[in-house]
Amino acid sequence: MDLHDLISRLPDGAVLTDPDLLAGYRQDWARDPSAGTPLAVVRATGTDDVAATLRWAHEHQVAVVPRGAGSGLSGGATAVDGGIVLSTERMRAITVDSVTRTAVVQPGLLNAEVKRAVAEHGLWYPPDPSSFEICSIGGNAATNAGGLCCVKYGVTTDYVLGMEVVLADGTVVRLGGPRLKDSAGLSLTKMFVGSEGTLGVITELTLRLLPAQPPQSTVVATFATLTAATEAILGITGTLRPAMLEFMDAVAINAVEDEMRMGLDREAAALLVARSDAPGEFARHEAEIMVGICEKAGATEVFHTEDPEEGEAFTAARRFAIPAVEKIGPLLLEDVGVPLPRLADLVNGIAAIGARNDVLVSVIAHAGDGNTHPLIVHDPTDAEMTERAHRAFGEIMDLAIELGGTITGEHGVGRLKKAWLPDQLGPDVMTLTRRIKDALDPHGILNPGAIL
Amino acid sequence: MDLHDLISRLPDGAVLTDPDLLAGYRQDWARDPSAGTPLAVVRATGTDDVAATLRWAHEHQVAVVPRGAGSGLSGGATAVDGGIVLSTERMRAITVDSVTRTAVVQPGLLNAEVKRAVAEHGLWYPPDPSSFEICSIGGNAATNAGGLCCVKYGVTTDYVLGMEVVLADGTVVRLGGPRLKDSAGLSLTKMFVGSEGTLGVITELTLRLLPAQPPQSTVVATFATLTAATEAILGITGTLRPAMLEFMDAVAINAVEDEMRMGLDREAAALLVARSDAPGEFARHEAEIMVGICEKAGATEVFHTEDPEEGEAFTAARRFAIPAVEKIGPLLLEDVGVPLPRLADLVNGIAAIGARNDVLVSVIAHAGDGNTHPLIVHDPTDAEMTERAHRAFGEIMDLAIELGGTITGEHGVGRLKKAWLPDQLGPDVMTLTRRIKDALDPHGILNPGAIL
Repeated sequence: MDLHDLISRLPDGAVLTDPDLLAGYRQDWARDPSAGTPLAVVRATGTDDVAATLRWAHEHQVAVVPRGAGSGLSGGATAVDGGIVLSTERMRAITVDSVTRTAVVQPGLLNAEVKRAVAEHGLWYPPDPSSFEICSIGGNAATNAGGLCCVKYGVTTDYVLGMEVVLADGTVVRLGGPRLKDSAGLSLTKMFVGSEGTLGVITELTLRLLPAQPPQSTVVATFATLTAATEAILGITGTLRPAMLEFMDAVAINAVEDEMRMGLDREAAALLVARSDAPGEFARHEAEIMVGICEKAGATEVFHTEDPEEGEAFTAARRFAIPAVEKIGPLLLEDVGVPLPRLADLVNGIAAIGARNDVLVSVIAHAGDGNTHPLIVHDPTDAEMTERAHRAFGEIMDLAIELGGTITGEHGVGRLKKAWLPDQLGPDVMTLTRRIKDALDPHGILNPGAIL
Repeated sequence: MDLHDLISRLPDGAVLTDPDLLAGYRQDWARDPSAGTPLAVVRATGTDDVAATLRWAHEHQVAVVPRGAGSGLSGGATAVDGGIVLSTERMRAITVDSVTRTAVVQPGLLNAEVKRAVAEHGLWYPPDPSSFEICSIGGNAATNAGGLCCVKYGVTTDYVLGMEVVLADGTVVRLGGPRLKDSAGLSLTKMFVGSEGTLGVITELTLRLLPAQPPQSTVVATFATLTAATEAILGITGTLRPAMLEFMDAVAINAVEDEMRMGLDREAAALLVARSDAPGEFARHEAEIMVGICEKAGATEVFHTEDPEEGEAFTAARRFAIPAVEKIGPLLLEDVGVPLPRLADLVNGIAAIGARNDVLVSVIAHAGDGNTHPLIVHDPTDAEMTERAHRAFGEIMDLAIELGGTITGEHGVGRLKKAWLPDQLGPDVMTLTRRIKDALDPHGILNPGAIL
């Protein structure tokens, strides 16, 4: 494939072809072993570059894998042989409108940068993946990312009011806008959220913002059994709406304590971190209610704090759980979710799957919304163990489906989970999905191999 | 067309063919003059009936117009000659799960019935169209309906977690489920919300619920000028998140006062009704802040009340504004929205359009989210006046588009507004819409003439 035509359509330096540089764009954090080697990486500087790249790819029938910050965990940005990786990392503009409480952002800005920019206007963008310091807002929209605050504040789609998106043939369309209410035509904006780059490339987002979050009260509780912890979770969510309700199991507690030395109870089977951001004294009031529920469920230790730094330290500990457990060994990272009443069945079932396959599985969870991240520790140089780990990975998804849940709550299907998607959705929904994909990307140029 | 085959596939009495009965299903509240006469009305008793009807229609290439309670205001349920009207009015089951805070409902249940059923579990379904006592939850989903609380709580799509939907060929699919987080596959659930029966027929919805709304504080303020009122609106939304922020102009105030005799100031140019549902004393606190903002903007009268009945009376007065103005004469009912900073431009522009076309236009609005309902009063027996009224109707949509707004915030496009949709969306988005329509309904059986 002659790239001169593509290069001539784009700004100087936008197209990378140096094999050493390409290597860094082959995989996202899922480290998909099936990753190919792209022809080139286009580092777009704006919508025009994205459109030019897609027009070229459309003319030459070349695959394009859109890529945000490369922090995806399902292989949604795995490069394919002979294709283009289209990176939005240089598209980083943002404007904030405090009157409509909206922000117009380009996809390459990191989630944390969006949060900081809007905070200068006294505003708040809620969705908060644990990776918020390193994941891009475009990637968040492409995967319909979640996070810790979702239990009260919802997921990315709840904050996307509009977008600019470039279609497979290079056509640029604008959808929605800075209006909370808009029933004009099909809900196309929402359709592109979570489409993982298979229907178009998002080049701009109009985000809904909230006033700055009030100060939070934080509850920390440890439990001797998983049963007691899940009882506390159901008690809390059945009583009020926590702003956060997070879970770590014994493996995660110890891994975090090894790294952070903050005095976590190494004997505990589970630790919950819950927060309330109700206004004024109501945050403390809700925290006291949550403390009471944890005590009633048999917590071995439980306290609450109104000190923001102390509260943030425990939240940071929970966010740090994945890298902490990863110190034990490389991870297969799961993202299964179930309706909340099935959470105990899921957690217990995961323990059984780990034991049956003789692999260490640590469970951390956004417990309040039933979204868990089982972390399967394995040694990739040990082929037999790796096989057991992958078997456990699949069995956990099978279990989630059996419990009426989902194979992915917030990471997306990408390439790593697509074999399980038909089991969850069924053949008719897969056919429907295929019809929409074919209608929007008839030549299959966009992110081939993801989802479908 | 021989209907015996259709009748034989459905329960006794499900198919109406009596012309007198059919007449009641030709139009919704939009009273679309282009309404045709259907072959038959199918009053489905369940998903099986909907699927059987669509399979039959697919085999015989017969148009199907889905219909909820028939309270639509854009002609989304206008019957077509030789087609079937498929009514979901008899599909009225609901189950509430207080642990996951979700309800599974059939489409024929009225919005108010959903609210009442979940309230028995201490829960709340927020979306509240003014027609909530007579509109169906299926129709709400089909139009992505809004209401008064949307300024704080969002619109219907924000509460739809899953659905069962019957596709154009009769295939039944289940999408999503009782999980706040689900990134498995395309966001199909959200795509069907707001699709106005053009992509499938919704036969079941899984709705997200909130804990019961706390007691509200209500602020009522009158203003001598529209400018003062819009200044107060922007002041309130820029300071806090009201649970409601409604607007009535002088015509609406007087029309309501004529009917309800509640002592509204007949001299006022505008009346605002705002509410706070912040917990405990914070509701009163927010009400006092809103009172201060209204006073600063030059309100002629302003007060707040913590009495639920008094607060509800003013809210009911606002909800009653449309039927009250309708006493003056038949209405063309608009639903245009703009980004909030353009609200004054929209309201002033609507007044100019009314004057220019010599028709009475009253404006009521969900002011807090920029969604207005200009009510164009006209005498349908006066052909010349009707022409002027329709011209004003179009000019108001043109103005909304020019101000960066939408031709419909919450009623949908239906048939009455479809001529303006391309002006708002542009040709590329219309092409995209058409591609999706053709992919899902290749024979154009579903609600032909709506949206597209």
